[in-house]
Amino acid sequence: MLESLKEEVFNANLELPKRGLIKYTWGNVSAFDKESQLFVIKPSGVNYRTMKADDMVVCNLNGEVIEGSLKPSSDMPTHAELYKSFDIGSIVHTHSPWATVWAQAGLDVPAMGTTHADTFYGSVPCARYLTEQEIEQNYEKETGKIIIETFEERNIDPIEVPGVLLKGHAPFTWGENPEEAVMHTVVLEEICKMNFYTRQLNPLSEILPDRILDKHYQRKHGLNAYYGQN
Amino acid sequence: MLESLKEEVFNANLELPKRGLIKYTWGNVSAFDKESQLFVIKPSGVNYRTMKADDMVVCNLNGEVIEGSLKPSSDMPTHAELYKSFDIGSIVHTHSPWATVWAQAGLDVPAMGTTHADTFYGSVPCARYLTEQEIEQNYEKETGKIIIETFEERNIDPIEVPGVLLKGHAPFTWGENPEEAVMHTVVLEEICKMNFYTRQLNPLSEILPDRILDKHYQRKHGLNAYYGQN
Amino acid sequence: MLESLKEEVFNANLELPKRGLIKYTWGNVSAFDKESQLFVIKPSGVNYRTMKADDMVVCNLNGEVIEGSLKPSSDMPTHAELYKSFDIGSIVHTHSPWATVWAQAGLDVPAMGTTHADTFYGSVPCARYLTEQEIEQNYEKETGKIIIETFEERNIDPIEVPGVLLKGHAPFTWGENPEEAVMHTVVLEEICKMNFYTRQLNPLSEILPDRILDKHYQRKHGLNAYYGQN
Amino acid sequence: MLESLKEEVFNANLELPKRGLIKYTWGNVSAFDKESQLFVIKPSGVNYRTMKADDMVVCNLNGEVIEGSLKPSSDMPTHAELYKSFDIGSIVHTHSPWATVWAQAGLDVPAMGTTHADTFYGSVPCARYLTEQEIEQNYEKETGKIIIETFEERNIDPIEVPGVLLKGHAPFTWGENPEEAVMHTVVLEEICKMNFYTRQLNPLSEILPDRILDKHYQRKHGLNAYYGQN
Repeated sequence: MLESLKEEVFNANLELPKRGLIKYTWGNVSAFDKESQLFVIKPSGVNYRTMKADDMVVCNLNGEVIEGSLKPSSDMPTHAELYKSFDIGSIVHTHSPWATVWAQAGLDVPAMGTTHADTFYGSVPCARYLTEQEIEQNYEKETGKIIIETFEERNIDPIEVPGVLLKGHAPFTWGENPEEAVMHTVVLEEICKMNFYTRQLNPLSEILPDRILDKHYQRKHGLNAYYGQN
Repeated sequence: MLESLKEEVFNANLELPKRGLIKYTWGNVSAFDKESQLFVIKPSGVNYRTMKADDMVVCNLNGEVIEGSLKPSSDMPTHAELYKSFDIGSIVHTHSPWATVWAQAGLDVPAMGTTHADTFYGSVPCARYLTEQEIEQNYEKETGKIIIETFEERNIDPIEVPGVLLKGHAPFTWGENPEEAVMHTVVLEEICKMNFYTRQLNPLSEILPDRILDKHYQRKHGLNAYYGQN
Repeated sequence: MLESLKEEVFNANLELPKRGLIKYTWGNVSAFDKESQLFVIKPSGVNYRTMKADDMVVCNLNGEVIEGSLKPSSDMPTHAELYKSFDIGSIVHTHSPWATVWAQAGLDVPAMGTTHADTFYGSVPCARYLTEQEIEQNYEKETGKIIIETFEERNIDPIEVPGVLLKGHAPFTWGENPEEAVMHTVVLEEICKMNFYTRQLNPLSEILPDRILDKHYQRKHGLNAYYGQN
Repeated sequence: MLESLKEEVFNANLELPKRGLIKYTWGNVSAFDKESQLFVIKPSGVNYRTMKADDMVVCNLNGEVIEGSLKPSSDMPTHAELYKSFDIGSIVHTHSPWATVWAQAGLDVPAMGTTHADTFYGSVPCARYLTEQEIEQNYEKETGKIIIETFEERNIDPIEVPGVLLKGHAPFTWGENPEEAVMHTVVLEEICKMNFYTRQLNPLSEILPDRILDKHYQRKHGLNAYYGQN
């Protein structure tokens, strides 16, 4: 079932090491099928050199395996929670180094330039640590809940800001489809790198003025967007 | 029309990701034909894997499309402004990370070594943010005007300093032809990286003395230049 | 003798430059055969382009060459000491840049994120300099002894923390087999890089709370580990 | 004449971009033939994609071209000066980024680890700026003289410390032959990178104790050297 989605998810997973986002198997991509309300996700800890599209695992929103002979990524319940709450088509989790640095530092990523504004409409938030109780209960599911809590409490639209950092851990990003979700991971990694160096170069560096943040986000994603061919 | 220039512009665009200057489609190269007063530019947001030389768009100095079935790069009006005011043959825009870091920090790039002096005869200036009014009027055209304003107000010759940073945004560089314009982007990226680390290593690092700046610039570009084969 | 282990050690050595861990011949991998109590190690200073699996040298735990026409790595006696004291199957030594930076700075690598916790159950220790006497006696053998001393004095289990830094020198890492030992080198390199930047970005960055360190280490290595396929 | 040396010099020049030491044509390698007292050097500013071994230029120690249809590297007179004073077989000049950073910062590179001690027996010195008079007289020849002055005044043996930084400019390195000279450039680049980060990580980082500097340098280069196969 969902063979073409499996192919897409498989290819997106292979793109992670190619784009320098992960080493070994430190990442996972999933994609959601709205019709069946099921999602396809990478199996856990399988060598990318031997992994096949057919090894992708199909799960439902309760975090149960529906099809597949391998165990799904251990982060699968986090994906399930996000698909339940956000209107998104694909999720990517990596330990990409620059985003992980900001996650370890426990800081939101501020919009310091138009590279950020072209994709993220404002700061990328850093979610809090899980409590002892949350960890014991269901670490991966609670991780999803904390991401949702972060967007709700701060009143951030997950479509306008398609990514988050988990404090002490690493990023999750998402998009309409695997290709877009991977691109958002690449953008997040790049702005985490550039913003780090910007602050080091000039500790007085400013946040991008709202008028430029608006202009760049809207010319790509607004009602009158004119970037690209459509 | 301008088929060979399209080929040149196309190849220069492909060189941007090869040289690590851009990811995805985050950049654009154009080239100017003095005879026809037209310029050729990359289309907006087209995947580099499927893009063809024939997809390049021909525009005039009023920023109108003269030939081409695709929309030109959204930054096209900036290119038009620069060709109107500067005597240059090609323009490159990227979000190359190190130059973008200096742009985000809002700082000019000082000449700290001979790598800089071999190409840029003095600091590479950082232009100011656009005002609310300029953004609303015509963001991309006004961006070109601000670049020209920067060179005029500071009395910098755009041939001697073939590049600029846009505050909070990224660099524009130029040259006689696409090959040279891309090379200037590479040099700017390299000196932005090296100058960052130089300052971090030794906050008391000096600007290159004028006598060495002059010697290196002139031995390559002066009347009695003796670098290279001609 | 031990032909298949030679093949494994040979391939693991070739993986070091491929993964950016070494330049030229600046590294060595060995593997231990429990049955014969012998280990196989890379020869000293042989060009990787001409080196063959058959060039690997077989040594015993007294640091004597048992088979091989080439001299073993000059660090061979360090490997012998570690196999005598630790229950491990393979050892890797490199001058990988980020781990070397922490070694030169003389600092333990603290657990600042889950990337660390997935592999190292706590700080990776930095061992002290050798004394004049230790250097004169037998530099490489004493290096092994100092590593063992470090783990004993600090009461660290070398299975739970499969790596060490030598002050002013570089890292040693180990594992059950060459593939795992190389992977531990990659992880150490990555966390040394990320922790450096984390501290620079936010000097007040915290060490990972014990509850998250435990969760991540145990879900991969504990009795009820559920990461991966087994 | 000197066809096989031309081949060696040609190949060493090609290795510079492969090892990430230069971009475009920003570097040059030469090699000295003791018998004829002539040296072979790269031509100036020739594209590496079209350059052939036969394009290498033969010069004498007075800096005169003896054979070759192309102009030699503009830095040729610096090479001539060094061959006259130092007993070396090959010279490499690059603007490799990390060594250039230290040169721009005007700082000697201290021995902070064994990676340094394996190749350089003590600090790599940074030579002073040239004076106005020296620049006007013969910039490239005087550059050679300043390198020699630096080693004499500080009583450094150029065989034990096979490299130098030129303040505000970049490094020169040398060795017995092109392969070794290129390797010394790679080592210098690596230690400049690692020492930068070491200082940033721990501003109180120490210089390597003499006993370890001695041990590592001597085990590779001393009378009783035991590193490698001979």
